[in-house]
Amino acid sequence: MYETHLSNRARLLISCPDQPGIVAAVSQYLQEQQANIVQSDQYSTDPEGGTFFMRIEFNLPSFEERFPRILQGFASIADSFQMSWRLEQERKRKKMAVFVSKEDHCLLELLWRWRSGELEVDIPVVISNHDHLRDIVESYGIAFRHIPVTKETKLQAEQQQKEVIDSYDIDFIVLARYMQILSPSFVKSFQHKVINIHHSFLPAFIGANPYQKAFDRGVKLIGATAHYITDDLDEGPIIDQEVLRVNHRYGAKDLKVAGRNVEKIALARAVDWHIQDKILVYENKTIIFN
Amino acid sequence: MYETHLSNRARLLISCPDQPGIVAAVSQYLQEQQANIVQSDQYSTDPEGGTFFMRIEFNLPSFEERFPRILQGFASIADSFQMSWRLEQERKRKKMAVFVSKEDHCLLELLWRWRSGELEVDIPVVISNHDHLRDIVESYGIAFRHIPVTKETKLQAEQQQKEVIDSYDIDFIVLARYMQILSPSFVKSFQHKVINIHHSFLPAFIGANPYQKAFDRGVKLIGATAHYITDDLDEGPIIDQEVLRVNHRYGAKDLKVAGRNVEKIALARAVDWHIQDKILVYENKTIIFN
Amino acid sequence: MYETHLSNRARLLISCPDQPGIVAAVSQYLQEQQANIVQSDQYSTDPEGGTFFMRIEFNLPSFEERFPRILQGFASIADSFQMSWRLEQERKRKKMAVFVSKEDHCLLELLWRWRSGELEVDIPVVISNHDHLRDIVESYGIAFRHIPVTKETKLQAEQQQKEVIDSYDIDFIVLARYMQILSPSFVKSFQHKVINIHHSFLPAFIGANPYQKAFDRGVKLIGATAHYITDDLDEGPIIDQEVLRVNHRYGAKDLKVAGRNVEKIALARAVDWHIQDKILVYENKTIIFN
Amino acid sequence: MYETHLSNRARLLISCPDQPGIVAAVSQYLQEQQANIVQSDQYSTDPEGGTFFMRIEFNLPSFEERFPRILQGFASIADSFQMSWRLEQERKRKKMAVFVSKEDHCLLELLWRWRSGELEVDIPVVISNHDHLRDIVESYGIAFRHIPVTKETKLQAEQQQKEVIDSYDIDFIVLARYMQILSPSFVKSFQHKVINIHHSFLPAFIGANPYQKAFDRGVKLIGATAHYITDDLDEGPIIDQEVLRVNHRYGAKDLKVAGRNVEKIALARAVDWHIQDKILVYENKTIIFN
Repeated sequence: MYETHLSNRARLLISCPDQPGIVAAVSQYLQEQQANIVQSDQYSTDPEGGTFFMRIEFNLPSFEERFPRILQGFASIADSFQMSWRLEQERKRKKMAVFVSKEDHCLLELLWRWRSGELEVDIPVVISNHDHLRDIVESYGIAFRHIPVTKETKLQAEQQQKEVIDSYDIDFIVLARYMQILSPSFVKSFQHKVINIHHSFLPAFIGANPYQKAFDRGVKLIGATAHYITDDLDEGPIIDQEVLRVNHRYGAKDLKVAGRNVEKIALARAVDWHIQDKILVYENKTIIFN
Repeated sequence: MYETHLSNRARLLISCPDQPGIVAAVSQYLQEQQANIVQSDQYSTDPEGGTFFMRIEFNLPSFEERFPRILQGFASIADSFQMSWRLEQERKRKKMAVFVSKEDHCLLELLWRWRSGELEVDIPVVISNHDHLRDIVESYGIAFRHIPVTKETKLQAEQQQKEVIDSYDIDFIVLARYMQILSPSFVKSFQHKVINIHHSFLPAFIGANPYQKAFDRGVKLIGATAHYITDDLDEGPIIDQEVLRVNHRYGAKDLKVAGRNVEKIALARAVDWHIQDKILVYENKTIIFN
Repeated sequence: MYETHLSNRARLLISCPDQPGIVAAVSQYLQEQQANIVQSDQYSTDPEGGTFFMRIEFNLPSFEERFPRILQGFASIADSFQMSWRLEQERKRKKMAVFVSKEDHCLLELLWRWRSGELEVDIPVVISNHDHLRDIVESYGIAFRHIPVTKETKLQAEQQQKEVIDSYDIDFIVLARYMQILSPSFVKSFQHKVINIHHSFLPAFIGANPYQKAFDRGVKLIGATAHYITDDLDEGPIIDQEVLRVNHRYGAKDLKVAGRNVEKIALARAVDWHIQDKILVYENKTIIFN
Repeated sequence: MYETHLSNRARLLISCPDQPGIVAAVSQYLQEQQANIVQSDQYSTDPEGGTFFMRIEFNLPSFEERFPRILQGFASIADSFQMSWRLEQERKRKKMAVFVSKEDHCLLELLWRWRSGELEVDIPVVISNHDHLRDIVESYGIAFRHIPVTKETKLQAEQQQKEVIDSYDIDFIVLARYMQILSPSFVKSFQHKVINIHHSFLPAFIGANPYQKAFDRGVKLIGATAHYITDDLDEGPIIDQEVLRVNHRYGAKDLKVAGRNVEKIALARAVDWHIQDKILVYENKTIIFN
């Protein structure tokens, strides 16, 4: 790819104590650096003394020359407002690893959206505790690593997973119906960098077998929830949810089959937002600028 | 209204142990009675030894003469298949009482759909533990009874409510955001005859203040659940559920305001199905033939 | 109401040729005026030479003193960027007139949302070509004007309507299932200030009897479209659309009854956005900042 | 597969002039043949003199012996009520051919649902006017036939297509974003046996480039329509429709990308209903018994 085709788009994400003047200071600075703001969103938990969040997309001509300068120069503004911040370049695609077990619907949805160009991400590797999906993954030209997990070998397995992740320089992980619970230390290493799909409308039906529980309760809508993983099972910040109408004719197995279609939609949307840096996490919630 | 305008439509609802021959026996019998079946639905929990449910709508010429005969004659078929059954006449509109507190959105939705002819029901009386909604109710030509409820007077109040309900010959009760919990004995007297609207997507956020809980959890969809009341709070058979997409900009109060619009939709739909005898209750679930 | 309770919130809406520096200039200016930006949205049809749109909400302490200054001072910035712009104060509620014929569902939805505080607007008057809805309107403490319309008297009737509108200092008009077509001169006087609800999913089923047409075509979803009125019937900028799933059991009349519930939802949402100055019109489309 | 695992389920589809006694006669007959009705649906365009439609699912013990008898014996009942009818066996899976061009999303959705067991159908062959999707199709173990189509060779190409279809004993065809218009004679040979997905919410945006048209009109929802092909382009009986909310930020290309996700859902659902014999066509509409 020639440099002239590279995107000149960057994204600035900020959070800080709210106070007057933030928008003016940031936009003034970007203007001085010749950046052209093409989108900006902001949210404040409370205009009087709350936390302020902002996401700015800008185009930057002469990107290669100016981007490092902005990265350096912004630090002083950030300091004066006590900002947490990060600056992302669209031309630098994120690297995503997918963890799967045996079910393929979420994986295939991600792979299809990736190949069609809908997900602007790199997928160097898929990791699985089973060998079932090797062929399909490799047919997409993606490395497949089979790392079996048992109760006894769990920590060793996670060590292997981490090595694979490091070796591919992975930015974030997607659990595409990966049926294993990750250890607290693993979760800690990847805070707000592991997206899971839970097959229920959280907080209903936390834990195992949500479709059976939904059947037993006789609900009229089933759902799926994409969320960041935290130590509390199924309690992490919710990114997206989707539902589907069902009726008394659906047995537990039918709910499971129908549910696949909402699982993959909710997960794909959440992954897309993560890729485009549209998600900010605040306490145990997400702010989605889309 | 002249008799010639009265509906000749009737509805037969059946549940019994499943076995071959039920549909044939029932439809044969109705055919012999000159009834013309215009709709029929059935469901079996398990074709091999489960429970069988059926709802049949039929037109019956010379209704006044033949209907009592069918009512009488069907008993022997019902006995031979061990059926629970009921036979409803469309011309005999159900009588519905509405219980409210101070919030009016569910009540007004029901009143509007009633006046527009969408809900084919009579509403002789609205009962409230507050006097706030008297004027609006009376402007619809409906009696309004203010029966205050305190912890101490609860059982007396329920006694008064029952007297009002008896005096109006009420068939079923709708709790349109009625903020009181009914006593077990009251619930028992009206089994599967009290419809409540809970302001969450059950079983998420059972109990008080669901919108605050939804806000605290950071959900991306809020919901409402219409269900029959049982002794277990918010655990009765679900009739209908509806959801609405929300985002981080919604505070707890905004969720409450937005939620009204799904509450009233789910409740109105559930009431309509009840009126049209489209709901069969099986264990703690509903079968909706619509 | 005491001054201290008045809102200090204002909204600035801008459109202009896109170029670098707009956001910086505007936010810098507001910052100098002590305004605290609490929300800002922007959109550009094309970052290279397109049209730029922005909506900013800000809080302004000492509102009464400073607001007129901003109003005056902003003109020079606006000039330098060739902006079309307007500045709205939340404390100055818009005045809305509703036009109706005989059907009441859209009117009642608006009145209920108005009384519940969901629509922050004043409704001084309802105008109708029939006298049917007088009682209900007057029960809300709103003036009702019956102005009959026939082919022959149409222009005179519109003249009377304009006088009523002027006398109440109306800001915008909502056609809540008003079954008359407005003349080009009337439409011209209220450009982007008349919101209509069309009872189909435009551009499907333009013109009269859309539910009959939807029935004839056998569609599986019906819809409603809220849009600004222009001279081309049903061709004005679309503000919002909503749909509802139907099936073969719905006759044309059932579609009409069911459709009311999407009509009122789409219309109420569009009106709410208009009230909050969330809509910018660009050519024949709307930009909704919500 | 051993015979003992074969399904004993059959489906009877009927349409005839409405008159009393149809349900009784049919269910009586099935009862005599030892069939156990597990589901039945019916619909009448008008109980007084309209057309009557029925779909019955039944289990039949000793299937191999009794099914041919039913097939033969039912003819006399059918005659007496002037029925059009067909009797389908679940154990005899339909054979489906898929026509594609270059876009793969609808094809892949069908293939995935087929492999996961969600679509109970056989897919012996995929036919395309391009060679692009050969590898992916063959990786599923399905034959791929490349039959180029030009204006000049269209009829010859259709002749080839028919030969392939005959050679695989195909029951129905799915146009999964096949960008060619079929000739009247081809359509005639496969009446109500060719399902197409049109990438708009019909009847809006008939013909080519619907996403561009949707963009130009500024709609707030985009849609997709699955329908049977008839000679009138995009005018055939609608089977299913699905929509997706969009906003001003979607360019024509974004609409196209987003639209893929509703196209594949609507198409997959329509195909599933066709496979399960849930669709009856009446004039230019469908009756869906689901």
